Amino acid sequence: MSSIIDQAKKAKKASYTMFSMSSETKKKALLSIAEALDNRKAAIFEANARDMALAQQTNLAMPLQKRLLFDESKLLTVCEGLVQLSGLEDPVGKKLLATEMDDGLSLYRISCPIGVIGIIFESRPDALVQIASLCLKTGNAVFLKGGSEAAHTNRILAQIITDAAISSGLPEGFLTLLESREEVTSMLALSDYIDLIIPRGSNAFVRYIMDHSDIPVLGHADGVCHLYIHEKADTDMALSIAVDSKTQYVAVCNTAETLLVDASVADTVLPRIAEALKQKGVTLFGCEKSAKLLSIPVVSEWHHEYLDYQMSVKIVDGIDEAIDHINQFGSGHTDAIVTSDKSVAEKFMNDVDSGNVFWNCSTRFSDGFKYGFGAEVGVSTSKIHARGPVGLEGMVTYKYKLFGSGQIVDDYASGRKTFKHRPITD
Amino acid sequence: MSSIIDQAKKAKKASYTMFSMSSETKKKALLSIAEALDNRKAAIFEANARDMALAQQTNLAMPLQKRLLFDESKLLTVCEGLVQLSGLEDPVGKKLLATEMDDGLSLYRISCPIGVIGIIFESRPDALVQIASLCLKTGNAVFLKGGSEAAHTNRILAQIITDAAISSGLPEGFLTLLESREEVTSMLALSDYIDLIIPRGSNAFVRYIMDHSDIPVLGHADGVCHLYIHEKADTDMALSIAVDSKTQYVAVCNTAETLLVDASVADTVLPRIAEALKQKGVTLFGCEKSAKLLSIPVVSEWHHEYLDYQMSVKIVDGIDEAIDHINQFGSGHTDAIVTSDKSVAEKFMNDVDSGNVFWNCSTRFSDGFKYGFGAEVGVSTSKIHARGPVGLEGMVTYKYKLFGSGQIVDDYASGRKTFKHRPITD
Repeated sequence: MSSIIDQAKKAKKASYTMFSMSSETKKKALLSIAEALDNRKAAIFEANARDMALAQQTNLAMPLQKRLLFDESKLLTVCEGLVQLSGLEDPVGKKLLATEMDDGLSLYRISCPIGVIGIIFESRPDALVQIASLCLKTGNAVFLKGGSEAAHTNRILAQIITDAAISSGLPEGFLTLLESREEVTSMLALSDYIDLIIPRGSNAFVRYIMDHSDIPVLGHADGVCHLYIHEKADTDMALSIAVDSKTQYVAVCNTAETLLVDASVADTVLPRIAEALKQKGVTLFGCEKSAKLLSIPVVSEWHHEYLDYQMSVKIVDGIDEAIDHINQFGSGHTDAIVTSDKSVAEKFMNDVDSGNVFWNCSTRFSDGFKYGFGAEVGVSTSKIHARGPVGLEGMVTYKYKLFGSGQIVDDYASGRKTFKHRPITD
Repeated sequence: MSSIIDQAKKAKKASYTMFSMSSETKKKALLSIAEALDNRKAAIFEANARDMALAQQTNLAMPLQKRLLFDESKLLTVCEGLVQLSGLEDPVGKKLLATEMDDGLSLYRISCPIGVIGIIFESRPDALVQIASLCLKTGNAVFLKGGSEAAHTNRILAQIITDAAISSGLPEGFLTLLESREEVTSMLALSDYIDLIIPRGSNAFVRYIMDHSDIPVLGHADGVCHLYIHEKADTDMALSIAVDSKTQYVAVCNTAETLLVDASVADTVLPRIAEALKQKGVTLFGCEKSAKLLSIPVVSEWHHEYLDYQMSVKIVDGIDEAIDHINQFGSGHTDAIVTSDKSVAEKFMNDVDSGNVFWNCSTRFSDGFKYGFGAEVGVSTSKIHARGPVGLEGMVTYKYKLFGSGQIVDDYASGRKTFKHRPITD
């Protein structure tokens, strides 16, 4: 096997070829990957059976075993996804701005691929197919590292995808599968070849990546999401949204971790919500007031992501304290308000400094698929480049193309010519 | 004076208030800053005279003294800029996407300020006014550090701007002027309070900032720009563009540093261009072939930004070698081709991995003002977030606002409801 730096050089070279890849080539490649996966499903299931057997031997936790399984139904889902993606508009080559700077001097801002993207993802082998296909659609070469539990499945999936893509006209080096933790560490130093890293995994892992690379990192280390019950909230709605935000799927980043309740309604609303959450098995930790009211332990740390049937509760003195608390202790991921007062909701949505701000609905809605983006490569809490769920748009950049007919700057600097700056509409 | 961390906390707090600042407040503030600068011009000129006297005493280089001068004409220019900026469309609160996820569940992607921006800029005091007003227009609080030569001028300008802005409704802490290098070093560690740093200055300085901060940095360390003369170039046009790209203003980032010429036309074209450049006082350094052809020294390093009357020359075997050379030795800033062949130009513009790719015009055109952006805070060679000249659009981010009426995710996960994902057009 060639060294990681040779692989990175190859990926960079491939990415240059991919800059001018046609929409038709990409479409053909996505469809032929779907076909190849279906044709070779027996071999995929066999490889997956090896991973599953190892997982059982090593007593991998049951939820992880469930994620690891790649069966007929998962295959169908990824193939449907490939077909859908092939039909979506090409995110590359879009005209984002067009200005006639002067006669015969036209400026365009055109969307284009980023280059080489490094993606580190969790155990699900279906994620490999999704990520590879998103990169293909956006014209980016990709370095991929999946969970080691899925090594056999990932290897065969990567091989099938690479073969089908290359047969359809993609360059060698378009996809590189990394197989060891050491290779990930090496990848972090390859800022000459890799343009963006998207890590998905535990907080500690993502934080480690962010702290140890000069390459821009897109993602989120933690999701400390808040649900704020304003004094003008409908109590039934608040109850239903609180239960859904906390318990619909506890192990994910958009689950609410802290409940804020206005002091004026805490006595009436909070006991009902607490009871409903208790019924679902949620343990609460409170501020001094709420701890007393609900007979629960006092919270130790407000910036805390439980990812479990646990939740912090704080009684606040209205919208300003709620917003301050969220901006101080949140993680900029997703925060929601329940209120019947539109102007209060608008203030909340403007002033809370998070990528996703919701009114009268569950925090669990912040997700690329639910948003209708068709696909998602992750959720970003960064404020630079892409924020919130990152779909195709977050995986492209742009360049300025200036078409001239011999113009020189000296003519404009000396006043012999002046710029016209007319918008081009065609 | 309060510590830098207290100032940063105050700036962060101010930025939260600025999230929901109206377009009217911003417009009023920009106009009242222009008025205040004009009213207090005597005091500004007096402060500038002190900086100029010190510059003369310390024998500051003449071009720098020229940049330092803040006179009636500079005042007029910055005031005109403020009035123009006040009239531009508000970049904040723009609807970038609108989807009805389901009945009564509407998703919007809305542009919003980034938060607190740290900007380190060169000696020109007029830059302080431009940068502060760009931050105001985009709703960002700002940490500013100017050149120490301009300390007196910067101090009074910052004071006048802050007073006028606060009288117009901006929060205290909207603008913080840093005055020492040590404060810049401290600023680099304030990732909890500062969201983005935009450094302008020498390569070494920008590189230092990039290497020493966890805060995202937008800008460019160097500008190794290329001009490629294709075999189908009009010779007169090539000559004129080469002279302009190299000599129109040698000390700036979009000046061409390397000339690439196709081997098939090198014998005829290169001596003419070399002669014209020599007339302008340019010293050339060549590849082996061109060094022999032109009797010039051999170049020592291709990735080199002269910022002076010097230029590298390389004879290449056609478009592929030209593109490879640029992608390997360029800095992703600005690269131009001269050719009469449209398909060759298109290949060049697609495959050269730079923020600005030009056909048949001078590299010196890559600039926010020339592009018609009205204002520019710098040029980015990053591929993430903003690329090329960065105007108002590069100084905002976005957030997702989801307006519901009690929706919970469990209804969709269980299949009781399904998403509709209809585009909202209103």
